[in-house]
This record gives sequence, structure tokens and C-alpha cells, in this order.
Amino acid sequence: MSRRSPGGKGESPAPTRRGFLVGAGGAIAGAGLAGGAEAATATTPVATRREPFRGRHQAGILTPQQAHSYFLAFDLTTAKRDEVVTLLRSWTEAAARMAGGETAAALGDDRSAAPGDSGEALDLPPSRLTLTFGFGAGLFTKGGKDRYGLAAQRPTALVDLPRFNGDQLVEAQTGGDLSLQACAEDPQVAFHAARQLARLAYGVAQVRWAQSGFLSATPGGGTPRNLMGFRDGTQVPEKLDEVVWVASEGPAWMRNGSYLVARRIRISLEHWDRSELDFQEEVVGRHKYSGAPLGKKNERDPLDLDRTDADGNPVIPETAHVRLAAAESNGGAQIFRRGYSYNDGVNFTAERWPPWRQGMMYDAGLFFVAYQRDPRTAFIPIFEKMSRFDMMNQYVTHVGGGLFACPGGVAAGEFIGQRLFDSV
Amino acid sequence: MSRRSPGGKGESPAPTRRGFLVGAGGAIAGAGLAGGAEAATATTPVATRREPFRGRHQAGILTPQQAHSYFLAFDLTTAKRDEVVTLLRSWTEAAARMAGGETAAALGDDRSAAPGDSGEALDLPPSRLTLTFGFGAGLFTKGGKDRYGLAAQRPTALVDLPRFNGDQLVEAQTGGDLSLQACAEDPQVAFHAARQLARLAYGVAQVRWAQSGFLSATPGGGTPRNLMGFRDGTQVPEKLDEVVWVASEGPAWMRNGSYLVARRIRISLEHWDRSELDFQEEVVGRHKYSGAPLGKKNERDPLDLDRTDADGNPVIPETAHVRLAAAESNGGAQIFRRGYSYNDGVNFTAERWPPWRQGMMYDAGLFFVAYQRDPRTAFIPIFEKMSRFDMMNQYVTHVGGGLFACPGGVAAGEFIGQRLFDSV
Repeated sequence: MSRRSPGGKGESPAPTRRGFLVGAGGAIAGAGLAGGAEAATATTPVATRREPFRGRHQAGILTPQQAHSYFLAFDLTTAKRDEVVTLLRSWTEAAARMAGGETAAALGDDRSAAPGDSGEALDLPPSRLTLTFGFGAGLFTKGGKDRYGLAAQRPTALVDLPRFNGDQLVEAQTGGDLSLQACAEDPQVAFHAARQLARLAYGVAQVRWAQSGFLSATPGGGTPRNLMGFRDGTQVPEKLDEVVWVASEGPAWMRNGSYLVARRIRISLEHWDRSELDFQEEVVGRHKYSGAPLGKKNERDPLDLDRTDADGNPVIPETAHVRLAAAESNGGAQIFRRGYSYNDGVNFTAERWPPWRQGMMYDAGLFFVAYQRDPRTAFIPIFEKMSRFDMMNQYVTHVGGGLFACPGGVAAGEFIGQRLFDSV
Repeated sequence: MSRRSPGGKGESPAPTRRGFLVGAGGAIAGAGLAGGAEAATATTPVATRREPFRGRHQAGILTPQQAHSYFLAFDLTTAKRDEVVTLLRSWTEAAARMAGGETAAALGDDRSAAPGDSGEALDLPPSRLTLTFGFGAGLFTKGGKDRYGLAAQRPTALVDLPRFNGDQLVEAQTGGDLSLQACAEDPQVAFHAARQLARLAYGVAQVRWAQSGFLSATPGGGTPRNLMGFRDGTQVPEKLDEVVWVASEGPAWMRNGSYLVARRIRISLEHWDRSELDFQEEVVGRHKYSGAPLGKKNERDPLDLDRTDADGNPVIPETAHVRLAAAESNGGAQIFRRGYSYNDGVNFTAERWPPWRQGMMYDAGLFFVAYQRDPRTAFIPIFEKMSRFDMMNQYVTHVGGGLFACPGGVAAGEFIGQRLFDSV
């Protein structure tokens, strides 16, 4: 096959992504690019806004949710600690560039080399891209082996998740040594960023599983609805910093970090859609259209778990989703949820419910993402109970996911996780 | 399980979707809803715009492309012609409602029944939703059987697609008796609409395969880039009406309709990303960054297929994608492309190229959608040649798709395809 260079004749030197945007997008793109994240205001078009990559905490955790998410879990394939460090260095550099609206690397002028960026985001603005990194248990020990001399630094909070009631986790969609979540207002920007980072991992880490998701913002800023048609996310912990961020409890490298629990939750939408409105609301514990707790008028009305009806039955059933998830039902335990709906087409499934129909069913539902300071006192006890009693379980199946330790944010000159590698 | 009605107490009567939007979205949502499609202008926020459902042609064919697509193919499971008619009637009614920003059906006040709409688009504006319907060969004959008395009306243009060189079509992602494409600016609006229609088909038609896609608009309106990083869609036929719409050639019920070819084209992105820029450009026949034909400066510069370099070699290689796809190379044959990128995670794949790496690879690429007046003189001869000679074939694999006859648009009081059923 020819490797001639017919292209060289007509083409100018390789451009930068910013150059493209100033040229193509004019004023719109320029607004966000000139000022950076600091200058972005509520009137700046959302696509042109940038989220700062460096800071005390990683972006993409308490960052207001973007419309699209692409999550990758990786298996490390190298035996060499240095190669892991080099990977994290290169990820940090590329992530900072892309969050700023640049290509992952300079495109370069060498026409006989593969470009430093695959190019599909060249004309697209930063789109509030965030890239959030996590470490799975396998970075520390795998098969009983201390692969990279990091075993002593494995946080006790980075447990092996127990098997919960009803779990049907598919091995190929579960776990991983490293996690990466790319979130952006544009699906092409999110996938582009993850793809560039995956490419930097060739020979060192291999993609294990991937999951894309979306979240449709409601005009006026209301709570978005999930695929069950209910408002999802009304209840947000009050003291978010205390719920989410690791503080002095250690290990030191996890300070200002958080633990991410991901669960791929398939929802039997066909079954849900045929359920009575009354029953849907009992399952959730809220009114479908207003989002109010059962028996209340407004979405923001407080949950009253003690209220009973004329027959003495609780207005919010004992096994309603909101009751079991509430902090009051869990000794104050809380998580911060940052999930996305997912929609992966259809595949052959047998329904778990009369009339036990078999056929092609939606592989769609919720890519549940939750952050917390310690999963042992948050997701695990909360879900341990929910997995047994939540009425919603007849509609949902957990089919994949993982637990990842997301280190604190990256300071200038640092690479992601550097404090871990410096500590041993 | 309890069927009590605790919810009835606190909740107002079932709302309408428009009611939600006027309440929640205020001025933004109101703009589009008050005026309808006619009143929408370039300054109306795109999400609030409506596309007219009824008209001479179906919407979603020459309609400017929306950002998201969800495609469903169905197998008819009923033996009764009446049930097919009833389905198409109900699809038409629900589609018209949803394109107008309404729920698929009134939600209803019966709390002990399943709601008439799953509800996840209640707070979302119309988002330029279009719903485009197509008929596969199986509606006319299947297994040699005239299932619904329509065999005589099968268009001769609705052929069984030949097997093309390199085809690796997966049966479960290919074909179908009916097709439905929902396109919208919001993925939740598109999926919502398709889901409501699939629900109306329970017992009559069963989803066979599904495919979601996205297309990221470039600020300033430039040609979007595909996942190969190249601008895709520069070349649009000049006489679109002649290329796309069936005229007097018959059958009569197809007048103002078009034939849809869908192909799920997986791209080996890992392989592409490691290919030299020079070679990528030779494969495509265009410069990557500018989009200009090889040897030219600007995207809109005309293709000069006769031009040779100093050595007498063609500047645009004989096997370049753009050369083989050009009307000049196909005796004037043309198609109108309306494709979307797709991104369905990763799965285990063996690379077809040195170093023949095996592992988890992106299941991502192009959901190619093309419209034409007759596939026998458009897609089939064009792709027959491309499937043998296009250099791009070393990167792409066709793994699914179908051919569907999309009838003309729906007039007031009509249902989709009514002229077919009225004709026999």
C-alpha cells in the first residue's frame, strides 16, 4: 500500500483546536476560550464553558452534572511500576489540555506519523469536560500479589464489595484496576477524551468495560426525570463536604478524595410501563408527576416517614425506595449520587414477572454513580438493606460496576495519584 | 402486594406535558409551544422548536439533522392485517402528539391503570422530534407467505439487499418488518418517543434491534466530524428532490416516499488512531483538518478526480473513499446520507491488521443512514464497487442494517402507510 504524501501539497501546518474554534465558532466559541473557567458566567453558552482540571478535589464529583458521560474501567497489563507512573503522568497532561479545550497532544507536523489526537473534537468547544480518575483494588494487590509495591497503601475503605442480594454482576462489566469517567455537555467530546486517554494506555492498561450515559437537563433547572419517569435527585445531602470528601482519616494520599461506587442497573422498562400509577408511586414513595413525597403536594416537602393513613398504614410504605434510601432510615448514612441514564439497545431477556414474557428487551436503565467518604459506612450498609427490601428490586437488576478510590485533586506540576506513589 | 392508593390524597389531576413546560420552563419553553413549528425562527432555542409531523413527505428525511437518533426495527408477530392497521393508526396518533410536545397519550386520571405515557419527557421541550416510519420486505411477504394480503404491493425497488463483499451482518441486528427512527435534539426525548411506540406494539410487533446515535453540531454550522476525525457530509447532492423522493414510477402508495438503507458500520478506531496522517488522508481522499479534497485548500473546493502529481499518479488515489463514492464515479448515481456516530461500549474483538492484537475494542462507528429514490440505481451499485475497492474497508466492518420503504408523508386524518392498505 502506498505511503506517498499527496496531501502535503495543499495543506497548511497542523492546526490547534483553539485555532479551529476561533475560526469556525466566532463569537460563541471565543467567549469561553478567552476567559477560561473563571470568566464563565451563567450567560456564557454552556458548551463553551470550561471546568478547571486542577484543584483541591478532582473535577467531575461535585461539579454540576453535564449532559453526557462515558465511563471506562481498565485492567493494568504491565508488571512495571514505572510504566504505571508514566501512564498517570501522561493522562494528567492530556486531561488538563482537553479540559482546557485543546487536543490531547499537539497534532504535530509529521505527516508520516499518527496524529497526536484523533481529531473528532477539533471543531467542538470544551463543553464543560471533566475527567475523573479512580484506583481499583487491583492497583494495590491482585491475585494476592503486590504488583507495584503499593499494597501497604491500599485504603481499608477500598474493600472488596460484598455480594448483595439479587446481584447479577457480569464479570466483563465489573471491576477494573483504574477508572476514568469523562463527562461533558457533548457526547462526542466525552468519548473523544476517554479515547485519547485509552490510547495513551496501549501496552500498559487495557479497557475492561465501558458505559455511556446521558442526563437531560430540564428547562428552568428542575430535577431531571429518570427512565422510570420519576424525578431523580431531589434529595441531596446537606453537608456535602462531610459526606463526600476523605479528611484526616487516611491514607494521606486519599485526603480530599472520595470513593466512587458504580452500578450498572438495568431496569425492566417494559414491565414498569405496564404497572399501575398507584403502584409505581408506592414503589418509589413519591408522586410521579409532582415529585412530592406520597401524601404531600410539593417536590421539596420533607419526607414524613412516620405519617399513617386512616387505617394506620404508613403513607410511605415500609418497602418504598425513598424510605429505605433516606438518611433517617440508615442511622444518618448518606451518599452523593451522580448517576446517568443509559440506553444500550435491546437484547434477549426473560422477564421475571407474569406473564413471564421472553424476547428482546431494552438494555437500559441507570448507570448509578455515588460518591462517599467511606463505602463501609455509606453505600454498603444502605444498599445491603435496600437489596433485600426495596420494592423496586422487582424492576431492577444490578449487572455490573465497581468500587474505586478517587484520589484528591491535582496541584500544579503534579500527576494524578502522585501522592500515592510518593508515599511508598 | 398492596394496591392501596395513598397517592390519591395529595396529588392533583394528571397533568399534560405542555402544562409542565409552561410551569417549569417559563419563557424559554413557552416560546416554542405557543407558536408551533411555523413560528420557530433561528433565534428560538433549538430545544423548544417543533418539527411538523404531517406533510407531503415524512419528517426526519430531509429535516436538518438533530443531535440524537434512536432507531428501532420490529418483527411483526401478528397474523392479522387489522392489527397491523390498528398499530399504524395508533403510531400515527401518538407520533403526531409527541412531535407537538405532548405525551404519547393522555396520562389519564385512573390511578389504578398504567399511565398512557412513561413520563420521562414530561418536563422536556419538543426538541425537534421527528418520527420516521419504514416498511421492510417482511410486511409484504415472509417465508414465501403473503401475510397481510399486501404482496402485490411490494415495490420492486424493495429488493432483498445482495451480500456485499466483506459483509459481516449479524442476524440479530439486521432486517425487520417495520422501522422507526426517532431523532431529536435530546437523547431522552428520542428514546422516550420510540419507547412509547414500541409499547403500543405489544402483542403485534416485537422489537428486533435498536441503535442509538449522536451527531455533534459544530459551532458556526460547519460540517460535523465523524469518529475518524474527518468532516463527514461535505458532499450533498444538488437536486435532492430527484435523488430522494419517489415520483410517478410507483407503486402509488410510495409517491413522495423514499427508500432507507441503514448499515451499522463498526470502525476499528484503535487501528485508525495508529495510522499515519498521510495514509488516513489517502484513504479518505481529503485533508483531515481542512476537509479539502487532497491537493486543494478549502473544504468546498470541487473534487478533481483527473488531477495527477508529477509522477503521473492521481492526487486522489484510485481507491480513495471520496473517489469511489462520487457521483462522477458512479454514472451519476447518488444517495442522501443522514448518518449518526454510534458508541456502544467495548467487546472482545480480534484486530484484522498487524500486530493482530486481540482484546476489548470499541464497538463504535457509524450508523449509516441513506435515502434514495431507488436503491437498485443508488446504494446498491455504489456500494457494490466500494465494498470491493474502498481503502477504508480495512478499517470498517458492516455488521447490521436493513432496507426499508418509507411511504410518503401523512395528510390530516390519515395514518402512516394508509395508502398502501387502501390500495389492496
